[in-house]
Amino acid sequence: MRISVLGAGSWGTTMAALLSKRHDTLVWAREPGLAEEISDKHHNGLFLPGHTLPDTLRATGDLVEATERAQVLVIGIPTHAFRAVLDGIRDHVPPWIPVVSLAKGLEQGSHLRMTQVVEQVLPGHPPAALTGPNLAKEILSGKAAATVIATENATVAKTLQEILQRGLLRVYTNGDVAGCELGGALKNVIAIAAGMAEGLAVGDNTRAAVITRGLAELTQLGVAMGGRAATFAGLTGLGDLMATCLSQQSRNRHVGEELGKGRALPDILDEMVMVAEGVRTTQVAVELGDRLGLELPICRTIGRVLDGEMTAKEAYAGLRNIPAGEEAGPW
Amino acid sequence: MRISVLGAGSWGTTMAALLSKRHDTLVWAREPGLAEEISDKHHNGLFLPGHTLPDTLRATGDLVEATERAQVLVIGIPTHAFRAVLDGIRDHVPPWIPVVSLAKGLEQGSHLRMTQVVEQVLPGHPPAALTGPNLAKEILSGKAAATVIATENATVAKTLQEILQRGLLRVYTNGDVAGCELGGALKNVIAIAAGMAEGLAVGDNTRAAVITRGLAELTQLGVAMGGRAATFAGLTGLGDLMATCLSQQSRNRHVGEELGKGRALPDILDEMVMVAEGVRTTQVAVELGDRLGLELPICRTIGRVLDGEMTAKEAYAGLRNIPAGEEAGPW
Repeated sequence: MRISVLGAGSWGTTMAALLSKRHDTLVWAREPGLAEEISDKHHNGLFLPGHTLPDTLRATGDLVEATERAQVLVIGIPTHAFRAVLDGIRDHVPPWIPVVSLAKGLEQGSHLRMTQVVEQVLPGHPPAALTGPNLAKEILSGKAAATVIATENATVAKTLQEILQRGLLRVYTNGDVAGCELGGALKNVIAIAAGMAEGLAVGDNTRAAVITRGLAELTQLGVAMGGRAATFAGLTGLGDLMATCLSQQSRNRHVGEELGKGRALPDILDEMVMVAEGVRTTQVAVELGDRLGLELPICRTIGRVLDGEMTAKEAYAGLRNIPAGEEAGPW
Repeated sequence: MRISVLGAGSWGTTMAALLSKRHDTLVWAREPGLAEEISDKHHNGLFLPGHTLPDTLRATGDLVEATERAQVLVIGIPTHAFRAVLDGIRDHVPPWIPVVSLAKGLEQGSHLRMTQVVEQVLPGHPPAALTGPNLAKEILSGKAAATVIATENATVAKTLQEILQRGLLRVYTNGDVAGCELGGALKNVIAIAAGMAEGLAVGDNTRAAVITRGLAELTQLGVAMGGRAATFAGLTGLGDLMATCLSQQSRNRHVGEELGKGRALPDILDEMVMVAEGVRTTQVAVELGDRLGLELPICRTIGRVLDGEMTAKEAYAGLRNIPAGEEAGPW
């Protein structure tokens, strides 16, 4: 199978490296010189410093070349650039082939999920999302992980499962595409909240409570947007949230932690090479909450901290001062 | 309000200390000399070394004295001794008063929840369970936490909520007593599994996947036993599981971690002052799975490691080798 991965960020490169062991895999790198570095030196110093990539992985700087040869197209582009890259390849994608999104976030403005963007820009191509608790550097180090391929068509799902499955990557299928994508996107907001708790050193009891109430909040929003509740309790919702909160590697958690220590958002983002999708997704979640009439206390509070309207410390004191009611209620 | 807490373990003592700030609180300590140490030196060196207890907390070694004065009775006794202590006070409990269980586990042999044991031994007393993500030492250090009071009668729930609520302890109510108690009990099995993952250093992706699939498993068992699915996604299920997995303080996680490092169960338990309820609960969960016809792959695998039939390393290799199907399936 000829697979092309568009985007040589940490996760795109990792998936491409994994796929290259069994398939003819080409990764497209936008960054000047990065394609040569990957092909010749088996290295991605910008996004995966210190890791050696397999000899089997080849890269190109030519977007059209990568697109035209593909039998499966995997899109590892952050949400803010996702549509623009698809627009650029619209006339070059071979017919029928499935398009798999790796991005975890929602489009600003339109509030669309990435498979919905694929449907708009590349109609006729079965869209799928690969999402779950997948810290790139762990997978590259040879540690086992489970993930989910979410797509509506059961035959496409089964074929993609077989293509993607490897000894150390356990691929489940799930037909609830909306639920899987929304879990992966919205969990980043709660990861920022959990990171703040860590930066403020409020303790594991409070961190656990915020994560739990946060999952309830993202489930409420996700169900209102068409996902199934059970999906948010699975690998793509809870599982991904857990990995993010357990690990020191998560970008969104890192943003929260630094905010918790009292630093300003622009300073934190300036230092980061990689994109923390949760910052944009928080804004989208708040807008969706307004439109759907949902309270979303944690998302809204995180939104106010990101906007500089309150400090992380004030946010946590505020969440604590609201009287508790029945557990099923919003507070 | 006169409150008596039976049992001066780490959690019983912590709740008693918290309650003593607003209520006339007496804690019963079974261990010789411990009551005097708590009353006179404001110290519980056996279970809470290094922590100072409030002057307002008094203790006694006289079980009948503690029982007869109570207007609310709180039972902080491990499950294996819970029924015996209730049997001993049966004729001394003042009429009508509620009995609140702090224990997280199921009775061996009968498979009963602790509020069911209260109903059997002390009929006519409203039974309640206080359960949630509550690491005792954090609460004693003045860190905020959320918890749940689970009882069927809404009036009793509201009154107990008012009695227990403090600035730093956020008390929610929940009428699904079975679900709340089962979450608190069964999460200890998954905490052992997550601890094993840590001891084996298999990575955060796998830890997150095991915790997620483990929560699905305990939800399946808990629903078959009469709990509501939503409860297991709340503070008493997921929340408690999260706190246990995030924290270095959890006893059940500690047992798993040491098993993961290759040590034998008897050696691990020999070193522990406190009771790791999950070891007994695993056996109960497997028996219940047999009776109810449930697969419970994680519980059964942990059971085999605890029984010495396989090593933690073999257990993780085994869980990985089973092919993945649909996410909604048992594997």
